[in-house]
Amino acid sequence: MRIGTLGNGLMAEALARHWAREHEVMIGGRDPGRASELAGRIGSQAGTLQEATIFGDVLLLALPAEVAVDAVRGLEIPPGRILIDCTNAIDQQDFTLAEPAMAERIARAVPHVHVVKAFNLAADSVWKRPPDGLGVPLCGDDPAAVTRVGQLISDLGCTPVPAGGLGRGKLLEATAALAIGIWVTGGDVRRMFPPLDAAFGSVRPGQPEAPDREEEIGAGPAEAAEVGPRRRRVGVVEAHENAGCADEAEQHHHSGDQAAPAQPS
Amino acid sequence: MRIGTLGNGLMAEALARHWAREHEVMIGGRDPGRASELAGRIGSQAGTLQEATIFGDVLLLALPAEVAVDAVRGLEIPPGRILIDCTNAIDQQDFTLAEPAMAERIARAVPHVHVVKAFNLAADSVWKRPPDGLGVPLCGDDPAAVTRVGQLISDLGCTPVPAGGLGRGKLLEATAALAIGIWVTGGDVRRMFPPLDAAFGSVRPGQPEAPDREEEIGAGPAEAAEVGPRRRRVGVVEAHENAGCADEAEQHHHSGDQAAPAQPS
Repeated sequence: MRIGTLGNGLMAEALARHWAREHEVMIGGRDPGRASELAGRIGSQAGTLQEATIFGDVLLLALPAEVAVDAVRGLEIPPGRILIDCTNAIDQQDFTLAEPAMAERIARAVPHVHVVKAFNLAADSVWKRPPDGLGVPLCGDDPAAVTRVGQLISDLGCTPVPAGGLGRGKLLEATAALAIGIWVTGGDVRRMFPPLDAAFGSVRPGQPEAPDREEEIGAGPAEAAEVGPRRRRVGVVEAHENAGCADEAEQHHHSGDQAAPAQPS
Repeated sequence: MRIGTLGNGLMAEALARHWAREHEVMIGGRDPGRASELAGRIGSQAGTLQEATIFGDVLLLALPAEVAVDAVRGLEIPPGRILIDCTNAIDQQDFTLAEPAMAERIARAVPHVHVVKAFNLAADSVWKRPPDGLGVPLCGDDPAAVTRVGQLISDLGCTPVPAGGLGRGKLLEATAALAIGIWVTGGDVRRMFPPLDAAFGSVRPGQPEAPDREEEIGAGPAEAAEVGPRRRRVGVVEAHENAGCADEAEQHHHSGDQAAPAQPS
């Protein structure tokens, strides 16, 4: 792949250093001197933002959130380019979002480009040397673009975690704001989530189901029916339809410690 | 504590079963028969929603998000009650939020009540038997209310994770929507976050700092200065000010693999 970075800061350095080992990279900067300096450190080319835009099939948008939208709007980006948005518009006063949906705003600014949200859940220093088995969620509407960004995630030794369309990018941004605000106070974000096999609750992947539950398979949301093993789906969907709020009306489906059935569609 | 549940579904059952061992619990239901049935199973009292509201110093709002706001608005809640909001208004079509800020909406509906967002990141089946060491983030504006809900989290064998004021509750809701959408497709949400010691990047908790960095301590956001060990703060704040986007202007602070300094305030 040919990769152009829009920005030559810490994020661009952390990611492009990995990619420069296997791909052609051009560091694009607003300041030619700094772009050259980084390019020299990681063994890549340097250019202006516009030159990097033309150079790369895949573009990494690693400018501050405050200037990112105007910057991409000001560039001539060839149609069909893939743009990875790793920005977070964090309000540093209270660690909320200053801008509720950056990725969608960027996509509206450059509608001829395939925007993929990724790499926004961790700091540049994490990307430098990702911990073993780190999953990297990514959101995008174009399947081919998501696949290519997934390859770039794998190049870091990480695992791509498909997280839906770009409309879910704002959830990824909110999650980053939550996580950063917790990390700065010393809280452990990873441990706030059950391990995968526990997240499913009563019905676990690979666990046999009672025969009378077969007819209920597929009663969950349409999306859940598209992916994953059949058995897994049921447990998750039923468990998480009740996540955070359980209707009393559902109570009659439930008895003791057994798994609650999926909801009728 | 005296705890009243608003709702007698799966979430109310999962949580109240733990609490009934150490506290007085009244299950409040819209349907008296179902409330009594659950109360019988976990060894507690039963009543109407209004009766549970009067009974409990702490109230668990465990009604479906669609009816939650109207339900609490319709109750006479004595001033100063603590209301735990564990709802998620998930759009089941695409696992986004149907309502962007439930906790804040609820707080506006009952301004004389201390609303605390908690228990919305996992399914009822997870709360039944929480995995070892599960952290439970909670958001609220009243410190005493947050402390009491923290005790109820500890009663489950879990660890309270302070996550800021109620204005950050919407981030917790968005994170739930992200997580649920990933779990239903078989993705591992926990592994998307670096372990705590890796989240800090170059400067890790307990790691000695160079003496010349001392003067930079406290240069991060004001909130970070209030909690946590001094040394830990620096690494996190500096790392995460750069999370997701690094300005080229910061580049001159940075050299090679050393930790980037905290930003001047």
